[in-house]
Order: sequence, then structure tokens, then C-alpha cells
Amino acid sequence: MDTHQLLLAIALILVAARLFAELARLVGAPVIIGELVAGIVIGPSLLGWVEPNNVLRLLAEIGIILLLFQVGLESDLDKLAKAGSKALVLAIAGFVIPFGLGFAVCHSIFALPLVACLFVAGTLTATSIGITVRILSDLGRQNSLEGQIVLGAAVIDDVLGVLLLAVLYEFASSGSISVGHAGEVALYVAMFFVFAPIAAKIISSGLTRLHLLSDLPGLIPVTFVALILFIAAVAHSVGAPELLGGFAAGIALSRRFFLPFGVSLHNDPVFTEKISSEMQPVIHLFTPIFFVMVGLSLDLSAIDWTSTFIWIFSITLAVVAILGKLAAGWLMPLSLHMRTVIGMAMVPRGEVGLIFAELGKFAGVFSNEVHAGLVIVIVYTTLLAPFWIKLYYRRYGEQIDKV
Amino acid sequence: MDTHQLLLAIALILVAARLFAELARLVGAPVIIGELVAGIVIGPSLLGWVEPNNVLRLLAEIGIILLLFQVGLESDLDKLAKAGSKALVLAIAGFVIPFGLGFAVCHSIFALPLVACLFVAGTLTATSIGITVRILSDLGRQNSLEGQIVLGAAVIDDVLGVLLLAVLYEFASSGSISVGHAGEVALYVAMFFVFAPIAAKIISSGLTRLHLLSDLPGLIPVTFVALILFIAAVAHSVGAPELLGGFAAGIALSRRFFLPFGVSLHNDPVFTEKISSEMQPVIHLFTPIFFVMVGLSLDLSAIDWTSTFIWIFSITLAVVAILGKLAAGWLMPLSLHMRTVIGMAMVPRGEVGLIFAELGKFAGVFSNEVHAGLVIVIVYTTLLAPFWIKLYYRRYGEQIDKV
Repeated sequence: MDTHQLLLAIALILVAARLFAELARLVGAPVIIGELVAGIVIGPSLLGWVEPNNVLRLLAEIGIILLLFQVGLESDLDKLAKAGSKALVLAIAGFVIPFGLGFAVCHSIFALPLVACLFVAGTLTATSIGITVRILSDLGRQNSLEGQIVLGAAVIDDVLGVLLLAVLYEFASSGSISVGHAGEVALYVAMFFVFAPIAAKIISSGLTRLHLLSDLPGLIPVTFVALILFIAAVAHSVGAPELLGGFAAGIALSRRFFLPFGVSLHNDPVFTEKISSEMQPVIHLFTPIFFVMVGLSLDLSAIDWTSTFIWIFSITLAVVAILGKLAAGWLMPLSLHMRTVIGMAMVPRGEVGLIFAELGKFAGVFSNEVHAGLVIVIVYTTLLAPFWIKLYYRRYGEQIDKV
Repeated sequence: MDTHQLLLAIALILVAARLFAELARLVGAPVIIGELVAGIVIGPSLLGWVEPNNVLRLLAEIGIILLLFQVGLESDLDKLAKAGSKALVLAIAGFVIPFGLGFAVCHSIFALPLVACLFVAGTLTATSIGITVRILSDLGRQNSLEGQIVLGAAVIDDVLGVLLLAVLYEFASSGSISVGHAGEVALYVAMFFVFAPIAAKIISSGLTRLHLLSDLPGLIPVTFVALILFIAAVAHSVGAPELLGGFAAGIALSRRFFLPFGVSLHNDPVFTEKISSEMQPVIHLFTPIFFVMVGLSLDLSAIDWTSTFIWIFSITLAVVAILGKLAAGWLMPLSLHMRTVIGMAMVPRGEVGLIFAELGKFAGVFSNEVHAGLVIVIVYTTLLAPFWIKLYYRRYGEQIDKV
């Protein structure tokens, strides 16, 4: 693709994202739905004006990394830590229940081979952290108790998803599983989450000082984007998803992050404010590209809508996907409404589910029909959950706040 | 290249750009030299950490488009129009003299074939608009009389360069030249410069109104970047360089741009201020990528430094390249110092010269040795001019201002 075609594709993605987001706002639908639908409309599903390619994928990846940076920046580490044990239970239950149910249904009802069922079950496990946090932040619920539990669980879920994917892919290609390797990766990821924020904090502290010395413009966007992308690349190299690098960098720069042993590296509050205001336009520019790309990647035109199998398969698995996450939410020792909304918030599978489905197809473990069914499950969970959550908060928001 | 490697490459480019720019500032060198040298250091010439690739080229292209947008935004259309006739003379003379001299030297002294000499002469014609405007804006001279003349001439020069390139490439591949086609393109480009700013103005006026209605964040970076990239893609489609689309969009949004026939579409001044402040971080983020990429593209490691031919060829042509532009400057009916600095500002050949040299090599019209010699000419003109101009302004700046 030539440069000018890419420029046009980027312009089109940005305009479509905005247009459909404004339309969603006008009709009272969740804004994120606008961006996802924009991708479906301009992508291969409908108009076919823009095809996903590596350049757009990179820009989308930068978008989600920067969004997670912002989420980390606005997080309260104390609250997040307090929500930690609940988040862990939620993540594990929300991982095990859909996996177990999905595998059972796939194997017993649809009688697919073992490996295929493992990938199908895997597709149902991982919550889309990007879509989940975006739904909550659009509703201003990101820093609520349930928001922090969901955020923590989505982070853990994302790591579990990557580990499971590595294990399944190894199994599909070599026929054996080495749990030791997965354990090693888990250890690296844990170490990453301890050390990356500390390193980010120290570097940003140095940047604060440089800011006082230098009069060249553009220090903040250039150095902070570089820092965030660097930590994202480090996250990848330890085996974690790149977007969690953005999250770790955000956590480090948040107001409530202190270094261990009481070492204090306070950011100048004026500088912290400046970081936030100068990073906003950059974050706002890249983020919609990610959500439009999720829509672009859902190729609905490739699906044979006359196939009875696809309909039955996708509806059955969608029920499993939704009930599995709701069941995990209901395990929380909280009020009924809060438990319900937590379960709902974990429902979107988005881009993470797509990766499982694509890799399963790529590894040749299941047919195009099964793949199409999974894409539809992902569409259901991704497009319906924002509506439910918005409506649920409208109906029960006050009762949730009272607790 | 994988996503995480690209993220790392982008982080490295941004950090190196900043680091070398700060070093340049410390030693009193032009800041742009820092960014160019950063590219030479981390690129194939020295460390080989980053290779130019399509993704980085796209980001660099967005960087230069956005820089030209800013230059347009800060331009005074009245001043630019008044400088117009001088700019036209400067552009044409600065195009014809180096071309004629370069062709003569190449053909008579070095006895290269006709087509090779046409490409060599072509390489000497086009001023790098990006490097030239950056030098002037780093020195705060962008809106001076000489700045406006140089800016106008660089814009015209860039169009002439593209036209010449198309003609030469056609000649190299088919052996014939159709001047009619070049004339057609020139007509399209002229029409583009009349209509694109008007269209941009009308669209931005609509966006001002949307801004009052919408409470979704991120309107400015998303819609204005989309608008700028769209006009850049249109510029390409009429045969003009993409970066001139950024310039046209900037001109349209500048304070002193009025629609024809007295139709007024005033921008809300608060909104205009907001556009500027929200676009700054985005422009600052992308711009260094362009200048580092120019450095990355100058592969000095591929040059055989022991070749006597390369040394003699490059030094001779560098003298032609520099004298040709200075001669064009001296034609201006202005004070001696102003004429000199105008000529100097037109010297950098940068990325535009590289395109000629690459295309000549690609079309097989000259040897690797000739190509290497041209790359060195580009390095000389690009790296020395910022120093001269800075020193010249330091020495004679007051006398230039007095006029």
C-alpha cells in the first residue's frame, strides 16, 4: 500500500470513528459502539474501503497502549491493591468457568476434536481489557470499587489469556504441553509488574528535571510516548501483552504511586498536570484507531449466514460465554447489583478472543465454519455488553453507589 | 518486522532525536543537526539499530505533513502573496542554475551519459522544504520577509522537483518526454492550491460548530489530523507532494486567510487557540521522526571512502549545488545580507535530493559510485547549511532586520 493510500485510510478511520461515535451519542448508545460499528461499516464486512494491514495494526496497538497508559495514570494504586484479591478470584473464575463450560459444550454437543475444543474454549476465556475499560471510563465508573475490581481482573485475565494461548499453540503444533514454560513466563510477568513501574518512575523523575533545564519544545509528548512504547516492548519481551506495558507506565506516573522503602521521587504537581494535558491529544488521536480496527477485523462478509450449524453453534457458545462471566461475577462477596455489573463488564471478548480464533484457524485446528461461529460469538459479546452495562447503570446505578 | 520491534524502533528514534537535539543545544549547534545526526548514528551508517522501513516512512511522512501544516498555520497569506513574485524568481533560478551547471559539469568533466547527467542535475535542483523551514523556524525567522520568500520558493521548488522527477523518470524508462503531461500536472497543482484551502476552511468551520455541540473528548486532534491527512492524500492524487497538502490545510486555518468574494467564515478565536494548543503535542511527537528518518536514509556505510572518483565528484558537485542556490539568492533585489541568507536557506537538498538519487539508481541510469557521490553532496548541503545560516544570522542578523 502506498503512503497516500495509508494516509487516506487513516483519515477515513478517524472520520468514521468520530462520525459514528457522534451518532451513537445522539441516539443514546454507548460511544464505543459507534467506533466498533465504524470499523464494521468501512471494513470488509460492508463497504470494504479499508482492509486491516500491518501499519494500521501498529497504530491501533499504539492506541490501546496509550489508552491503558491513561487508565493506569488515573488509577489509585491503593484501591487497586485493595481490590486485588477479589480481582484475582474474578479473573480466575471468569477464566475457568467459560473454559470448562465451553470445552464441555464443544466436545459433548458439537463433538469437535480435542484440540479444536481447546481453542474454542480458549476463545471464550479472555475478556477484552480495552473494551471493558473503555466502557467503564465512558460511563465515568473507572475509579469506582467495581471499576477497580474489573480493571484488576481484566489485567490478570489478559496475562492468563496470553499464557493459555502460548500453551495451546505449542500443543497444537507439537502435541505436547510444557507447563514449566508457562510458569516461567508467569514469573517474568510478575517481575515485570514489580520492576517496570519503578523504572518508569525513576525515568520520569529524570525527565521532570530535564524539563526544567531544556527550552526545546515537545519534551513531554516525545519522551513520554517513547517511555511508554519502550516499556510496552519490554512487556512483550517478558511474554506479557504489550498494552500492559502502557498500564505499568501509567501506574508509575499516577499521583498515588510511591517507590518501595519510602524512597520518594515526587513529581512536580505542575509538571504532572502538564503531562496529562499534553498527552491527552495524542491519546485521543490514537485510541479510536484501535476500536475501529477491532470492528475492521470482524469480517462478517466471510460468514455463510445460511449455515444452520453456525447459528446454533454461535448462539450456544454465546450463552456459555455470557453465563460463564456472569457466574464469575456472582462469586464476588458484594451486593447483587454490583456482582451483576461486574460480571457484565467481563463479558466483551473483543480483540483477545479474535486472536484465539485467528490462531486456531491459522494452526488448522478447526474449520472455517467453527471460526465463523466464534467470530459471531465475539461480535455478540462485544456489541451487546456495552448496551447492557449502560442500561444497568441507568436503572440500578444509584443502588450500586449506595453500598 | 514485529509490532514490538516497531514500538522499540519508534521509541529509539524519539529518544535519540531528543538526546542529540539537547546535545546540539548544549554545544550551540542547530537543533535540527541533532535530529539528523541521531538518524545517522542509530541508522545503517553507524550503529545499525534501526533500518528505514515502510511503517517508519509513513510516520515520518505524517511528521513532515504536520510540520508543514504548522508552517502554513503560522503564515501570513498577505505577506506570502507579496513575497510571491520574488519567491517565483528565486525558485525558478534556484532550479535552473544548479540544473544547468550540474548537467554541464557532469557531462563535460565527468563524461557521464546523458540520462545519468539529467538525474545528477535533477538531484541538485530541489531544496528540501522540510529542512529549510525547520532551520528558519528554529531561529524564529519564519515570518520575516526573507523567511516568507524562502518559504514560497521552497513550496514552488518542491512542485517543480516533483514535475521534473516525473519527466526524468518517464524519459529514463521510455526514452521520450511528454511535456504536455507535466503541464497538465502543473495545472492540477495550481487548481489544488486554489481550491484545497477553501475546502479546508469550510470543513474546519463546520468542525467549529460541531465542537460547540459535542461533549465527546478528542474532537480537535482526531478531526484535524484527519482533515490534514485527507488533503495531503488529495495533493498526492493531483501530482503534488503530500506535504504541500499539510501546508494548504495550515494556510486555510491561519488567522489571515479569507475566503474569496469576501465570504467570511470566521473561526471562533478561542477555538483557534484551542486548535493550536491541542495540535502542538501531536506535531511535536511526529516531526522529529521525519528528520531522524532523513538521517537514517543517508547510508554512509555503503560508500567506498577510498574511491578518488567519489571524493572529486562529490566535492565538485557540492560546490555547484551551493553556488547554484547562492546565485539564485543573489538575483533578489534586496540587501546583500538578505540575498546571501536567502541563497543559503535554499541550499539543503535533504530528502528531496535523496529521492532523485534513489530513483536514478533504481532506474539503473547510474552506477553505485555516482549514487554514493550524490549522497555525499546531499549530506554536505544538508548538514552544513544549518550551521552557516545560524552563524550568519548571529553575525549579520541585526543588519538584516534593519531593512
